[in-house]
Amino acid sequence: MGDQEEKMEKFEGYKCSICGEEYLPGQVTYTCPRDGGNLDVVLNYAEINKKYQPGDIKNRSDGSIWRYLPLLPVPDPGGEETSLRYVGWTPVYDLKPLAHKNGLDSLWVKDESKNPTASFKDRASAMIVARTQQLSNANKINPTLVTASTGNAGAALAGMAAATRQKAVIFAPKNAPPAKVAQLLVFGAKVLLVDGTYDDAFDLSIQASNAFGWYCRNTGYNPFTLEGKKTAAFEIWEWYSHLIGLPDSHNRDKRLTIFVSVGDGNIISGIHKGFKDLLAIGWIENIPRIIGVQAEGSAAISNSFHAGNENIEAVSANTLADSISVDFPRDGIRAVRAARETGGTYLTVSDRQILGAIADLGSCGIFAEPAGATSYAGLIVAKVKGLLDDEGVNLVINTGSGLKDVKAAMQSVTAAPVIEPTLDGVKKYL
Amino acid sequence: MGDQEEKMEKFEGYKCSICGEEYLPGQVTYTCPRDGGNLDVVLNYAEINKKYQPGDIKNRSDGSIWRYLPLLPVPDPGGEETSLRYVGWTPVYDLKPLAHKNGLDSLWVKDESKNPTASFKDRASAMIVARTQQLSNANKINPTLVTASTGNAGAALAGMAAATRQKAVIFAPKNAPPAKVAQLLVFGAKVLLVDGTYDDAFDLSIQASNAFGWYCRNTGYNPFTLEGKKTAAFEIWEWYSHLIGLPDSHNRDKRLTIFVSVGDGNIISGIHKGFKDLLAIGWIENIPRIIGVQAEGSAAISNSFHAGNENIEAVSANTLADSISVDFPRDGIRAVRAARETGGTYLTVSDRQILGAIADLGSCGIFAEPAGATSYAGLIVAKVKGLLDDEGVNLVINTGSGLKDVKAAMQSVTAAPVIEPTLDGVKKYL
Repeated sequence: MGDQEEKMEKFEGYKCSICGEEYLPGQVTYTCPRDGGNLDVVLNYAEINKKYQPGDIKNRSDGSIWRYLPLLPVPDPGGEETSLRYVGWTPVYDLKPLAHKNGLDSLWVKDESKNPTASFKDRASAMIVARTQQLSNANKINPTLVTASTGNAGAALAGMAAATRQKAVIFAPKNAPPAKVAQLLVFGAKVLLVDGTYDDAFDLSIQASNAFGWYCRNTGYNPFTLEGKKTAAFEIWEWYSHLIGLPDSHNRDKRLTIFVSVGDGNIISGIHKGFKDLLAIGWIENIPRIIGVQAEGSAAISNSFHAGNENIEAVSANTLADSISVDFPRDGIRAVRAARETGGTYLTVSDRQILGAIADLGSCGIFAEPAGATSYAGLIVAKVKGLLDDEGVNLVINTGSGLKDVKAAMQSVTAAPVIEPTLDGVKKYL
Repeated sequence: MGDQEEKMEKFEGYKCSICGEEYLPGQVTYTCPRDGGNLDVVLNYAEINKKYQPGDIKNRSDGSIWRYLPLLPVPDPGGEETSLRYVGWTPVYDLKPLAHKNGLDSLWVKDESKNPTASFKDRASAMIVARTQQLSNANKINPTLVTASTGNAGAALAGMAAATRQKAVIFAPKNAPPAKVAQLLVFGAKVLLVDGTYDDAFDLSIQASNAFGWYCRNTGYNPFTLEGKKTAAFEIWEWYSHLIGLPDSHNRDKRLTIFVSVGDGNIISGIHKGFKDLLAIGWIENIPRIIGVQAEGSAAISNSFHAGNENIEAVSANTLADSISVDFPRDGIRAVRAARETGGTYLTVSDRQILGAIADLGSCGIFAEPAGATSYAGLIVAKVKGLLDDEGVNLVINTGSGLKDVKAAMQSVTAAPVIEPTLDGVKKYL
């Protein structure tokens, strides 16, 4: 266990994102006991800096989030030759045609649909599985995992739990897209469809977690979700350093803008946390600009950002982008800060703009779900608003596969004609 | 162009799989002019052997089918930073729980759902795109691509064409699953749904190709589909050499059995071709045993295999595994040989067995479409029939993502209950 203990040293504890109170690793499990604030994991940055150079990471052959183990608060979870080892390290595609279309020098998309269960959420769920194993090793019990989910987080938890033979219970709103529910069930999770919203499912899953002693993955509520999601920032750091040909890790270039679709606010907060970690370790000098994009019908965080405060007020969410359809965001405060502290902003887009974004990305060979295309829809708005330097590097994140929500995809295109099986039938449609 | 010309030298021509007639690269485009037989691409194996060692391949950093360029009949297609460069190099997972369940020492799955458009077919479509670019460079025209497809091959062609800005026309049967049709449309392909079967769509696409001068990707009909699909064999070769710890490439171990779902017969033929290439180059001494698995309701190739001949007789296909639902297989003869020449066999499975296989794979975190799970259903049959050495290494290939056919997936599981958003609602279902 020497290796594990050594790794544990770098996990110092938690710090409340609201009151700043600090806690040791064993003192708390989920949120701040004082004010319910979400907790940031605190690492021993000085120790990491002393022990590792950026090259120690960049030269690792492991093409997954586990290449960043030195920067994560968990020991190696094992799971070799399972999908747990294939989370992250997603491709970044160069979208020259769309850059041109939008009058930009550069436009890239990081395609998270290539994760094992086809969404960004695998990053968080993989981390939760690793944390569970760590807790199980300490307590000699292997708890049931539970989460509320609009679909992707649940599929990710169910998939990672299946890969590592852990039990999972998923609470989803009864209107979750069929493909996402099918994924949950096929992965063998116990699925309960809640007659209510995602927010109802969220609250109920916490009650159930407390009542039955399940380990709760809920987004934001569990500090380790952020630790999983921050790995995307590490990958962006490596990608961008390589892109601009920096000989060392010190990124002196401030031109990168990252567009992130925002629902609960945990992905944008996770990406921000990753860059903050890199800054704290001393491996970067600046954090890229982060722009959050919300659906007009689910814009609680954007509202707060533009009101200039951190008072997240619930909305009555209504958007076809189900993954970011949220009444009360569970990581709103940190999400506001992700934009504010990096010189970014929040933008909102209509469902019509989201559908157009699906078609645009599709024309380059990328099939995004509505929430995944929302970031690109936001980039178009940013360009129109004059927020983008023509020579800047722009990166949009596609958070999930379009195969997860075919009904929405079909709204973004014109249906195909049915033809007679004859050449004349073909000619009629050309 | 020196590099391209040099690479061209290894592409010697074609050989008809029926009459054995040989053709130069420029003499034919699709099938044998004499008897309509599918053509095998012939490489200059002696030249490849002289020029390359296995290590030249195995040490390449390119994690895609393009790592095998020295063994492919096309020059480097470019397309850096697009999904074209992310085809292949799919993960192989260790399914210990299912091995145990089936009384086997070893059971692995190669998960082709991780390809850019989520199926094995990306391998063939990427090769067709590369071939098109080669032809375009020679003829200065960039032809429209066309294919018939039950969905996956079309999505793969549409996706690869979109990534490389080529035009694609797809003929699909009108009963293709909605997710597959949505993918085609989102990728910007011209989609024509044929009021008929896949076989009708196949014939019509060839007529249209001839009438309009389109370059036809049709499975088997275009010799380059096999060249794309053979890359899976190369990956299996590398994986297996690593697994059993062979210090060099010479695989003296005959214990590997590969299970492949079979519809048109092109995937199993492609895998066979890959191993035959490796044998011809002298990099392996034996070809693994290849077992084809067909749905009971679409078993034309299995019928021919067990009749002991190569007379492929059409059936009236009826199976929920749409990707392998084929009346008249377009690569039947080579598919029969893939099993016969490797000591393999053909097995058939019922739709019920396929649904059970989806659930089994799901319990390990792998979400397969019906055709993808068919290979694993066949493995269970093989074990029951006593065809498997307990100490053998068994590899099943999941050819596509379960997200492509959610309706079928839902038949493999029990629907989730809808509950009241209260703890009592939860307790009722535990």
